[in-house]
Amino acid sequence: MCRFLAYRGEPVFLSDYVCAPSHSLVHQSLHAEEAKTETNGDGFGLGWYGERDTPGLYREIRPAWSDENLKSLCAQVRSRLFFAHVRAATGTSTTRANCHPFASGRHMFMHNGQVGGYGRIKRRIEEMIPDSLYDERLGTGDSEAIFLAALGDGLADAPVETMARTLKRVRRIMSAAAIDEPLRFTAAYTDGESLYVFRWACDAKPPSLYYREVDGGLLVVSEPFDKRREVWTPVPKGCTLVARPGQAVRTACLDEAMARLAA
Amino acid sequence: MCRFLAYRGEPVFLSDYVCAPSHSLVHQSLHAEEAKTETNGDGFGLGWYGERDTPGLYREIRPAWSDENLKSLCAQVRSRLFFAHVRAATGTSTTRANCHPFASGRHMFMHNGQVGGYGRIKRRIEEMIPDSLYDERLGTGDSEAIFLAALGDGLADAPVETMARTLKRVRRIMSAAAIDEPLRFTAAYTDGESLYVFRWACDAKPPSLYYREVDGGLLVVSEPFDKRREVWTPVPKGCTLVARPGQAVRTACLDEAMARLAA
Amino acid sequence: MCRFLAYRGEPVFLSDYVCAPSHSLVHQSLHAEEAKTETNGDGFGLGWYGERDTPGLYREIRPAWSDENLKSLCAQVRSRLFFAHVRAATGTSTTRANCHPFASGRHMFMHNGQVGGYGRIKRRIEEMIPDSLYDERLGTGDSEAIFLAALGDGLADAPVETMARTLKRVRRIMSAAAIDEPLRFTAAYTDGESLYVFRWACDAKPPSLYYREVDGGLLVVSEPFDKRREVWTPVPKGCTLVARPGQAVRTACLDEAMARLAA
Amino acid sequence: MCRFLAYRGEPVFLSDYVCAPSHSLVHQSLHAEEAKTETNGDGFGLGWYGERDTPGLYREIRPAWSDENLKSLCAQVRSRLFFAHVRAATGTSTTRANCHPFASGRHMFMHNGQVGGYGRIKRRIEEMIPDSLYDERLGTGDSEAIFLAALGDGLADAPVETMARTLKRVRRIMSAAAIDEPLRFTAAYTDGESLYVFRWACDAKPPSLYYREVDGGLLVVSEPFDKRREVWTPVPKGCTLVARPGQAVRTACLDEAMARLAA
Repeated sequence: MCRFLAYRGEPVFLSDYVCAPSHSLVHQSLHAEEAKTETNGDGFGLGWYGERDTPGLYREIRPAWSDENLKSLCAQVRSRLFFAHVRAATGTSTTRANCHPFASGRHMFMHNGQVGGYGRIKRRIEEMIPDSLYDERLGTGDSEAIFLAALGDGLADAPVETMARTLKRVRRIMSAAAIDEPLRFTAAYTDGESLYVFRWACDAKPPSLYYREVDGGLLVVSEPFDKRREVWTPVPKGCTLVARPGQAVRTACLDEAMARLAA
Repeated sequence: MCRFLAYRGEPVFLSDYVCAPSHSLVHQSLHAEEAKTETNGDGFGLGWYGERDTPGLYREIRPAWSDENLKSLCAQVRSRLFFAHVRAATGTSTTRANCHPFASGRHMFMHNGQVGGYGRIKRRIEEMIPDSLYDERLGTGDSEAIFLAALGDGLADAPVETMARTLKRVRRIMSAAAIDEPLRFTAAYTDGESLYVFRWACDAKPPSLYYREVDGGLLVVSEPFDKRREVWTPVPKGCTLVARPGQAVRTACLDEAMARLAA
Repeated sequence: MCRFLAYRGEPVFLSDYVCAPSHSLVHQSLHAEEAKTETNGDGFGLGWYGERDTPGLYREIRPAWSDENLKSLCAQVRSRLFFAHVRAATGTSTTRANCHPFASGRHMFMHNGQVGGYGRIKRRIEEMIPDSLYDERLGTGDSEAIFLAALGDGLADAPVETMARTLKRVRRIMSAAAIDEPLRFTAAYTDGESLYVFRWACDAKPPSLYYREVDGGLLVVSEPFDKRREVWTPVPKGCTLVARPGQAVRTACLDEAMARLAA
Repeated sequence: MCRFLAYRGEPVFLSDYVCAPSHSLVHQSLHAEEAKTETNGDGFGLGWYGERDTPGLYREIRPAWSDENLKSLCAQVRSRLFFAHVRAATGTSTTRANCHPFASGRHMFMHNGQVGGYGRIKRRIEEMIPDSLYDERLGTGDSEAIFLAALGDGLADAPVETMARTLKRVRRIMSAAAIDEPLRFTAAYTDGESLYVFRWACDAKPPSLYYREVDGGLLVVSEPFDKRREVWTPVPKGCTLVARPGQAVRTACLDEAMARLAA
C-alpha cells in the first residue's frame, strides 16, 4: 500500500502541499494513519508539469522522510499539475522504475492498491500491454503494467470506460488463476490537462481517498494532510473524480461503467 | 533511536538471530515495540568476526527490511561474534559512514541513544578524538565520535572506566552549552574477544536492553526477538554487561564508575 | 559490456583475486583494457558458495571501485566457487536486479555481451522463459532472461547443448525482427559444482576471455588481472571451458553444438 | 578531480548546457578529456536559482551518466544562474553531502581540485570554519570545509581577497605538516547574483577552465562541451573570472591578491 497526492490548479510550490502541512505526504511516509501500513518507506516519486508537454519525474528508492533532494526540489518547483507518491512495496523490488508516478509521453499515472497474487499472474498482466508500449515498461510492478495496458487500450480518450475495461480484464486473469486476494485500485491519471482519480476495489475496500477544492485548484489525497477533516470530502467507493479544464469537478461512476461491461 | 543485536559464542549463521525470529532485528526495522520510534529505516549495518582479526562490515543506507543483500549475507555468513544494527537517525544524515557498527582495527562499536543538542556541540565532541584517530572519522555522527574518543582514551584496556570517563566528558560539554536534552547511551563494544554492553542515561531513561544465554553463546538485544519474554533478562540501568573469554557473564556497575570520577 | 571473474578450486578469500591484483576486477571497473568500454561502473555483483547449496549474492548499483562493503566482504569471505562481475549497461536500467550474477536455487549465471536490438525484442526474449521460472525474473535485462530460458530448457543437464539451443532461439528472434546488431555472448554458468564458461558471438567478436590454472584451482577472467600475460590462456572463440569435479579442465565446442542444431 | 559548469544569464533550461551538447557535462562524467581522470563517476550535483533567494540542490552518489532524475530535472528546470558538477573523489567517501555544489543560505560553491595530504590535515582545515558555520558542515570533504571557512572570513564581501587569504591559510597548514602534494583550486562561487570563478594552483597546474559569452549569458566550463574550441577562452592561471550584474565580465588577479598577503 502507499499514500499519494495530486494537485491541479493555479501553479503552487510543491512544498506547500507535499512537505509543509503537519501531516504532509512526507510525514505520511513515516506515519500514515489510514493506510494498511503505517510506514511507506520503499521509495517515492514526484511528477510535475512545467513548461513542457511531458512531465518531469523525480523518483528515488530512499524513504521520502530523509531525502534532502525531495525537500529542495519541492521548495523550488512550482507547478499547475503534479503527483506525489510514497511507496509501501507489495512484493516487487525497490527500484526507481517501480516507484510511482509513471509517465509515457504527456501521460502520467500513479496507484495505491494491489493486484492480489500478482507474482503468479505477472506474465498474464504484462500480456495486456500492447507491443507498441512494451518497451516503455521499465519496471517490474503491477501498477506500471496496468497503466501501460490501459493507455494502449484508449485511456486518453475515454478514461473511465477504459479503466473499467482494464480492471475487468485484470479480474478475469485473477479469476482464471483462482486468486482469492483482492484487486484494490485507487489511482490517478492525467494527460497533462485533465485529472481523473479512481477509487475501486473488488471487495469494497479500496484505499482511502479524499479531495478538497482550494483557492484556484483541486487537491486529491490518500488522507487529509491536516486536522481539518471537515474540509475534506471522501471520494465514494466505486467512483472516479473528474477535473477537466473549464468544467466543475464532478464524480463519475466507475462501478456503473464496469456493470455495463459485465452485461 | 535505533535497535541492535550482539552475539558472542559458538559460530552461528547470522540469519538465525538477525532474520529468522518472528520479531527479528529486520522486523524491528519496521515495527520496533520498545523504541522511541517504531520505524528504524535510516540504514543498517552488520559487523562480524570471521577468520581475520578485523571485522567485516556491511552497512547500507536503505532500510533493512527490503535489503536483499542483507538477507543473503546473513544466510551465508557464520560468526562467533557479531553486531547488527538498524538505525533511526537523530539529525545526522543517512550515509553508510553514519551507520553502525563502527570499526577501528580489531575494535567494533555500536550505539543506540542520543547526545542531546549534538548539532550545537558537534565540534566540542569531535575535539575529544585524539589526532591519531581523527583520520578514522569517516562519518559525521555523535556515536562514531564517542567511539573514537573512548578508544583513544583507553577503551580497550579498561572498557567500563574509560566509558564512564568519556560519558562524563560529554556531559560536561553538554552542560557548558546549557543543553537540556538528555544523554542516553545504550551501546556495545568489543575488541574481537570480549564483549561489553553499556546501558546508561543521565535521565534514567536509557534505551531498552536485554540478554539471554543460549546454547554456547550470549545474545544481547534492544528488545526480545520472540514472544518468550521470560527467557530474556533486562540489563539494569546504569550497568554494563561483561562477557570475557573463559569467564561467566557478569554485570559491572557503570554508575559507580561514574560516581568515583565525580568524587 | 562488462568484465567478470570466476573461480573454482580450493577455498580462497575473494579479495585474493577480486581486489588485490594490480589489474583486479575492481580496477577493471574503472580501467578495463580489453573491453568495448573502459568504464564498467553501472553496478557490480558477487556470488559465492559457502556452506549452503545456494549461493550468497551481493549486488549493488554503485560502481565497484568505491564500494567499501565490497572490499570488506571480499576480505572476509572464503569460497571454493565464486563469480564476480562489474557492469557496463547496454540500455537497461541500473538496478540491483539487473546486476550479475543471477541465481536460481543452486544455479548461478553471469554474462558479458549483448543482445543486439534487445529493446525491440524484449517481449520475445522473455517468452522463452517457462512459466515455472517466470516469477524468478526480478530484473528487466537480456542476460537474466537468457539464463532463465536456458535453465528452463535443460541447462543443468546438458549445459553446452542447451546453451547452443538457447542462442539459436535468440538469433532466430533477432532475425525475425531484422536486427543487424550482433549477439555476443561470453558467460559463466555453475550448478554449484561444475563450471561452464562460454565464448561465442554471431559476428566472431565475442568479448575477451582467459583462463589459468592456479594452485588447486581454476581462474577464468575477462582480462588478465596482472602483467604476466604468458600464464593466461585465451578461451578460443566458439568454445566452452568445462571444469567438472574430478576431471581435468577441458574445452568443448559450442560452435559445433550449434552447427548440429542448424543441420 | 572533477568537471563542472556554471551559467549566469537569461534563464535557460539546464539541459541545454548540461545534457544536450555532444561533449556535455554528463558526457564528461564518463569521458572527460582534459581532466586528470577520464571518469568522473563518484556522484554529481546541480544547484540552481529559481524564484527563491536560496538555490535548489540535487545531489546524488550515482554516476551522472545513468541518472534518469538528472536528465528529467534538467529538461524541466529553467534558471538564470546554475552550477553543475561531476565528481571524481580524491579520498573522501561517496555521499550526497560530499557532492558539489555546496550551499549556505543564498551562497553556493563548487570546486575542482585537491588539497594535497588532506587526510593528514583534515582537522586543521576544519578548524578554519568558524563556530557559527560549523553546523552547516554536512560532509567530510576538503571542498566544503574551504567554502565554509571562506564564507566565515568574508567571501561574500570581498571574494577575491578572501579566497586569496583562505588559500594562504591552507598552504600554511600544508607546509606545517610537510605536505609535498600540491594545492590545486579551480572553483566557482556565487551569492545568487554575481559569479566568481577561480583558477589557481601552488604548482602552476590548476585544473582547466574555459569561458564563453553566449547570447544573454556567460558559460564557464572545465572543458569545452563542443568541438568549437575557438569560441572558448581559457581562464588564465592565477586568475578569477568576475561576472557582476550590470558589468562586463572581467578577470581579476588572484595571484596578485595572494602576493599582497605574502608581503
